[in-house]
Amino acid sequence: MSSHFGTLFRVATWGESHGGGVGCVIDGCPSQLPLTAEEIQQELNRRRPGQSSLVTPRDEKDQCHILSGIFQGVTLGSPIMIMVKNEDVRSEDYEPMAQLFRPSHGDFTTEAKYGIRNWKGGGRSSARETIGRVAAGAVASKVLRNFYPELVIVAYVTALHDLQAIIDSESIQRSDVDATSVRCPDLLMAEKMSRRIEEIRVQGDSVGGIIECVIRGVPAGLGEPVFDKLEADLAKAMMSIPATKGFEIGSGFAGARERGSEQNDPFTIQEGKIRTTSNHSGGIQGGISNGENILFRVAFKPTSTIAQEQETVTTQGEEVLFSAFGRHDPCVLPRAVPIIEAMAALVLCDHALRQKATRCLFTKDGRQEENSQG
Amino acid sequence: MSSHFGTLFRVATWGESHGGGVGCVIDGCPSQLPLTAEEIQQELNRRRPGQSSLVTPRDEKDQCHILSGIFQGVTLGSPIMIMVKNEDVRSEDYEPMAQLFRPSHGDFTTEAKYGIRNWKGGGRSSARETIGRVAAGAVASKVLRNFYPELVIVAYVTALHDLQAIIDSESIQRSDVDATSVRCPDLLMAEKMSRRIEEIRVQGDSVGGIIECVIRGVPAGLGEPVFDKLEADLAKAMMSIPATKGFEIGSGFAGARERGSEQNDPFTIQEGKIRTTSNHSGGIQGGISNGENILFRVAFKPTSTIAQEQETVTTQGEEVLFSAFGRHDPCVLPRAVPIIEAMAALVLCDHALRQKATRCLFTKDGRQEENSQG
Amino acid sequence: MSSHFGTLFRVATWGESHGGGVGCVIDGCPSQLPLTAEEIQQELNRRRPGQSSLVTPRDEKDQCHILSGIFQGVTLGSPIMIMVKNEDVRSEDYEPMAQLFRPSHGDFTTEAKYGIRNWKGGGRSSARETIGRVAAGAVASKVLRNFYPELVIVAYVTALHDLQAIIDSESIQRSDVDATSVRCPDLLMAEKMSRRIEEIRVQGDSVGGIIECVIRGVPAGLGEPVFDKLEADLAKAMMSIPATKGFEIGSGFAGARERGSEQNDPFTIQEGKIRTTSNHSGGIQGGISNGENILFRVAFKPTSTIAQEQETVTTQGEEVLFSAFGRHDPCVLPRAVPIIEAMAALVLCDHALRQKATRCLFTKDGRQEENSQG
Amino acid sequence: MSSHFGTLFRVATWGESHGGGVGCVIDGCPSQLPLTAEEIQQELNRRRPGQSSLVTPRDEKDQCHILSGIFQGVTLGSPIMIMVKNEDVRSEDYEPMAQLFRPSHGDFTTEAKYGIRNWKGGGRSSARETIGRVAAGAVASKVLRNFYPELVIVAYVTALHDLQAIIDSESIQRSDVDATSVRCPDLLMAEKMSRRIEEIRVQGDSVGGIIECVIRGVPAGLGEPVFDKLEADLAKAMMSIPATKGFEIGSGFAGARERGSEQNDPFTIQEGKIRTTSNHSGGIQGGISNGENILFRVAFKPTSTIAQEQETVTTQGEEVLFSAFGRHDPCVLPRAVPIIEAMAALVLCDHALRQKATRCLFTKDGRQEENSQG
Repeated sequence: MSSHFGTLFRVATWGESHGGGVGCVIDGCPSQLPLTAEEIQQELNRRRPGQSSLVTPRDEKDQCHILSGIFQGVTLGSPIMIMVKNEDVRSEDYEPMAQLFRPSHGDFTTEAKYGIRNWKGGGRSSARETIGRVAAGAVASKVLRNFYPELVIVAYVTALHDLQAIIDSESIQRSDVDATSVRCPDLLMAEKMSRRIEEIRVQGDSVGGIIECVIRGVPAGLGEPVFDKLEADLAKAMMSIPATKGFEIGSGFAGARERGSEQNDPFTIQEGKIRTTSNHSGGIQGGISNGENILFRVAFKPTSTIAQEQETVTTQGEEVLFSAFGRHDPCVLPRAVPIIEAMAALVLCDHALRQKATRCLFTKDGRQEENSQG
Repeated sequence: MSSHFGTLFRVATWGESHGGGVGCVIDGCPSQLPLTAEEIQQELNRRRPGQSSLVTPRDEKDQCHILSGIFQGVTLGSPIMIMVKNEDVRSEDYEPMAQLFRPSHGDFTTEAKYGIRNWKGGGRSSARETIGRVAAGAVASKVLRNFYPELVIVAYVTALHDLQAIIDSESIQRSDVDATSVRCPDLLMAEKMSRRIEEIRVQGDSVGGIIECVIRGVPAGLGEPVFDKLEADLAKAMMSIPATKGFEIGSGFAGARERGSEQNDPFTIQEGKIRTTSNHSGGIQGGISNGENILFRVAFKPTSTIAQEQETVTTQGEEVLFSAFGRHDPCVLPRAVPIIEAMAALVLCDHALRQKATRCLFTKDGRQEENSQG
Repeated sequence: MSSHFGTLFRVATWGESHGGGVGCVIDGCPSQLPLTAEEIQQELNRRRPGQSSLVTPRDEKDQCHILSGIFQGVTLGSPIMIMVKNEDVRSEDYEPMAQLFRPSHGDFTTEAKYGIRNWKGGGRSSARETIGRVAAGAVASKVLRNFYPELVIVAYVTALHDLQAIIDSESIQRSDVDATSVRCPDLLMAEKMSRRIEEIRVQGDSVGGIIECVIRGVPAGLGEPVFDKLEADLAKAMMSIPATKGFEIGSGFAGARERGSEQNDPFTIQEGKIRTTSNHSGGIQGGISNGENILFRVAFKPTSTIAQEQETVTTQGEEVLFSAFGRHDPCVLPRAVPIIEAMAALVLCDHALRQKATRCLFTKDGRQEENSQG
Repeated sequence: MSSHFGTLFRVATWGESHGGGVGCVIDGCPSQLPLTAEEIQQELNRRRPGQSSLVTPRDEKDQCHILSGIFQGVTLGSPIMIMVKNEDVRSEDYEPMAQLFRPSHGDFTTEAKYGIRNWKGGGRSSARETIGRVAAGAVASKVLRNFYPELVIVAYVTALHDLQAIIDSESIQRSDVDATSVRCPDLLMAEKMSRRIEEIRVQGDSVGGIIECVIRGVPAGLGEPVFDKLEADLAKAMMSIPATKGFEIGSGFAGARERGSEQNDPFTIQEGKIRTTSNHSGGIQGGISNGENILFRVAFKPTSTIAQEQETVTTQGEEVLFSAFGRHDPCVLPRAVPIIEAMAALVLCDHALRQKATRCLFTKDGRQEENSQG
């Protein structure tokens, strides 16, 4: 059951890193949306390995195919199946993994749960599963752009190891982010980050970091009170991405050290609209968007696969030493940027449809009008 | 739709802070579980206001009634409806709120979404909604204790404003936590926290902080890969609690500044079982519990309601000054402790039932056996 | 999990026939809908026992209370909890049932499933559970009337035992139906049915029959292809009502004996609208409403509770003879009429919201308009 | 959303009749189940067109490919993606359909709902969508065989046009059914049915009929009270199959004409087990299986596509005459048999997992045991 996401814009991903392929089925996409494989491919290319020397050289094309749900260039309202074949498989690299559990990977827990695992790669724990997410996110983004032409989602690396960038979330664009191979638009820091990743790689080690994501142009009214708060669904979405260890919104953990008089966001009127003069809330109050920028951060642990020797155990319960070989990212953050944007798009698109379903205004004479807000 | 939580152990909460009452319906609880209203009441009392001078003096009894699902002292397997009436309502305190939006509350966003709100209190955004969660959590805890006698969930205040406690998550018990009115088992720090809350109250201000939660005795194998990772569901559960702004598991945001060689948890064999020698993962790997302690932290912003004067706007779009009066917590953290424990229990109980459903071992001669792990 | 119904307009019922009470929680009702307890009570009264000599004399008031979700006479968009207390409980009537399984009731299967049952009445299998459905259906009906002012749902008894009525589904109104105690608007036949029920009662026996339901004024476009076809969701809704054994739509089982040239519904243009010249389809084609009347029939078996002596077994596995006493309907059909209308309203309201969520028209310049159909 | 089925054993189908292909994603299949593409292919072949002169000569291979979820011959517990490419597409046959709505097809309603349709075939309303169901049903059947070695699902044509077969549901086997091209194991009647289909074909017409399905070897305890009654979920499953117009279980509509004393199923003890001496209930009481054979019937309307001239309208609203050409079944029933078996398997497998999840026995000293029933 665990491969489904969303209530109305519902995505099911499928596929292991080593097998026939990976992909997704999107159910609930509105009809008549113009959509091409090229638009999806563009996002997949941003996620794709082999983009620079900083990421894994696994040389796949990750060419996507849309097998259903599109007719004469627009969506039908029926399930959209998007598939990427697995081409560049060197599963002999993984043979030793059949017999042992790699530290801090899902190998042991998968076997504890299912009594079996596809040891040729990480199976469903592989980053390759996220291809389905990025493809679905590209469709969700297109829906959102049609609903809310002002809506923009931009994620970027804001910290890597102990290097901290300074980035203006109000103005940053995806093109700024993609201009550097580490996807950090603070150019000076990006340069340092690239060097750091290179140093770490040489040492057979890995690093983590923090990605920030800003969503501008969100109307007030998305999200729901109680369990499906917009920040709760964003938190789940982000914490479902491999290697994530933390999520915070607005002033987050730092805000917990402050007073109410410092953290509250006063309301004001600007150009006839209700706005806040600060945004410690990160664009969401009571689980519902307030029209300000949504701003959140996601912590990534260092990649678990390292070349250095580590202690582990075999499936037979023997203690052994293990060094990974094969092709791996010393740092997942640059490639995680489009995954975060995709998951954010999925959450927002789902809540946009949910809001569309329930928002209506009943008047006393028994007729109904669309509410104009949002 | 937003008032439902869980896939198999499914909870629906209902009720506003000012109205007929609040409560929950639990669907999917296994049958024949011994259950009394007293057990649930005990948890509700821990959440209840009026326990000390540090929390709101709103003097409710919060007496719960079980209206269905129990027969001769045990569960029937049918929906368990638990209700608490609203007794001590002074809604005249709230009359001014009808005309304005309190800063950093859900007032404005609720009205943007629904075109209406119950301004007599926070409606569904009120902390009073969490009564249904705590009641359901008490039932989930009872189920879990029967499944896994070793399983213990303990939450505690680990930081308040800039005060940071030191607590041993390996040994801490709920009785230690409840021994102090701030629910911080570091006694020296608890004393300072109490004084700090008192100072803040006098200043008409509020403070936030951090609650840590440890879950000991979890078997390996709970949680699912991809979207319903155990940490993702915990993150959603925690970020759905009012006033939360961040969630991290294991080494969390701090771990993002480290290297893989520092953060990976080596496997070893202890007493014939596969264990890790460190626990930076926080008990979950690949979305699935590994048998080590689950350890996470939740950031709470300072309470939005403060007595100091703040800038805000009226529902008619006029800028005004506003000072809250009435009865409010200067710090929600002590009362949030049982809510966090309840939400953790709901997540684990749901995943325990999901694991029970799908785990089975097929053998070659076509018969099936229970997997012995977990 | 089994007590939830609906995707967007989601209802959870709770309560046993003998316990604290029964009721429902409605999640997903649009906000600002005027709603009073009286409107709901009116429908509950139609379902209520004790309306005539033909139905069980159990004398309950079934007075409903709305405990949440309403503010100043309109819905808030939050969960609506509606409760009816159990007042007239004579559980001593049921004491013998603790030790045996009544034939064709759910006693044996409930115990096989849960290992326990509330033998004081039928527990969740009791007709009393349907109070929550009727209450929720009243709310759904109100939503539908606001969406589609022309929409009318009317159910009526069309056959009872071997008595077959003739009723014009095009024109029939609820007032016609409620004018007879058997809820059969064919007055001559209604008289015969009343006498038949009386005869059967005297004989300590029971009878079944067929209820037909017509829904007029449904716009084209409700329902979904594949699994959630409108007729599939109606079938599930109807077959979830106690004592139902069959469902058919349009020409149903009789149509299976015909040819395509006889059964197809030719399209024509009437007053500028696309219509069909016949309605063998029963208003649904490809799972989606076509704007014609939806017309379906539901078969009810004879009430299982009869005064005549029957063979059965005890919980200890002994064969015994059993005669029911206490108060029971010799025929459930008259009271089932409002239950069928309620379930039909729940299905249509859910699909109306789903349609509202996904229907939108994307144009080439990237803007979106509401589709005018439906 | 409408392309998902099941709660725990969850199937999503995708694909149009004319496009890249069709298939399904199965989420929630237990791990370690031996599974090959051949087993699935075997069921697909039973559904496949071109098996005899009685069904459409569309000559597809319908070769299935499993792209994920299997490793070294057994299931991984991860999503199983099964795909069949569309090979034999002669979409020029459908060109005229772009401009008109075929009577009693989903053309008009699909366009009313989505504002667009894939007029190259029936899109999602096509029988080709059922390939995904049959593939998923083959997997569900394999799971069921492992859970309950005695469980057998057999469907067969029991009526076609006005021809009524006599078949013993107690003993019938799939091999008996597949022995005739009409899938009616009453050989004399099968012969008549074949001739009737041939006559109807020559006349450019079509016929409907009734399929009966028996499920033997079901343990007591599957299904849930209230909304997810086993018969309610079966009804939904069957009424979601294209061209179905009715569902009845046990004595069904005929039973509605009887008395309780005739219809009740007395309990008895046979070989130490609680059994019923009759089975008017059709194996389900109170929504839960009672261990007797589950027996239900499904009514199919005559195929909508006929070669005779019919009145219809164009998409521009003009009245025209229309005769279908191309390749079509004059009678869908023989090919519908494996679809009904597949949907029955999906419902039972889902409820088997649900039962597995919640059934447990709590004892007074706080330990839990598996319930031995079922």
